[in-house]
Amino acid sequence: MNDRFSDMPDPPYYAVIFANQLSNTPDGYGEMADRMADLATTMPGYIGRESTRDETGFAMTVSYWHDEASIANWKAQAQHALAQKNGKERWYDHYTLRVARIERHYSGPEGR
Amino acid sequence: MNDRFSDMPDPPYYAVIFANQLSNTPDGYGEMADRMADLATTMPGYIGRESTRDETGFAMTVSYWHDEASIANWKAQAQHALAQKNGKERWYDHYTLRVARIERHYSGPEGR
Repeated sequence: MNDRFSDMPDPPYYAVIFANQLSNTPDGYGEMADRMADLATTMPGYIGRESTRDETGFAMTVSYWHDEASIANWKAQAQHALAQKNGKERWYDHYTLRVARIERHYSGPEGR
Repeated sequence: MNDRFSDMPDPPYYAVIFANQLSNTPDGYGEMADRMADLATTMPGYIGRESTRDETGFAMTVSYWHDEASIANWKAQAQHALAQKNGKERWYDHYTLRVARIERHYSGPEGR
């Protein structure tokens, strides 16, 4: 496996499933996205993230957290709140965000 | 919004979060992936999916289901079982699969 996969602690734990379509004018988006990804790693309860974006600007990022309180705390973090504001006003044509409780998981293939 | 976003029924509902890294020799993968995506839409309890893959072959697909029984039924579906076997043997360098219960969700930006 490579480092684009998140750790898998024993369930239950929590996920934020964020799907988004970038607008045609996402000025400043890339730099802010990198900063937010780095900042998230410093937050209490953070486990990891898996993220990918295709050439049309459609992306999915799933971040994993030990509990829902950690997710609420991250949502309210000041720099992150500013990023969310920019996202709504300029960067995203559309997004969905779902908070989910991981019940079970597995990985593979065996030995890889 | 565009048609790459899934419907959002009232929570709770369930998600299968599938992250995967394609191998360098995914012969037959694209055709099978398209067939499985179509077949899933015919399964009981299916809600929708959101999926994206980047130029390195790292992908995330999240499919949404009304209940866990529907997810188990889809996992056991014969053609899908064959696809999973090919995935383990040939297509994927690594994958993680997590089953999660959606607790809450929202979408935006408002009006878009």
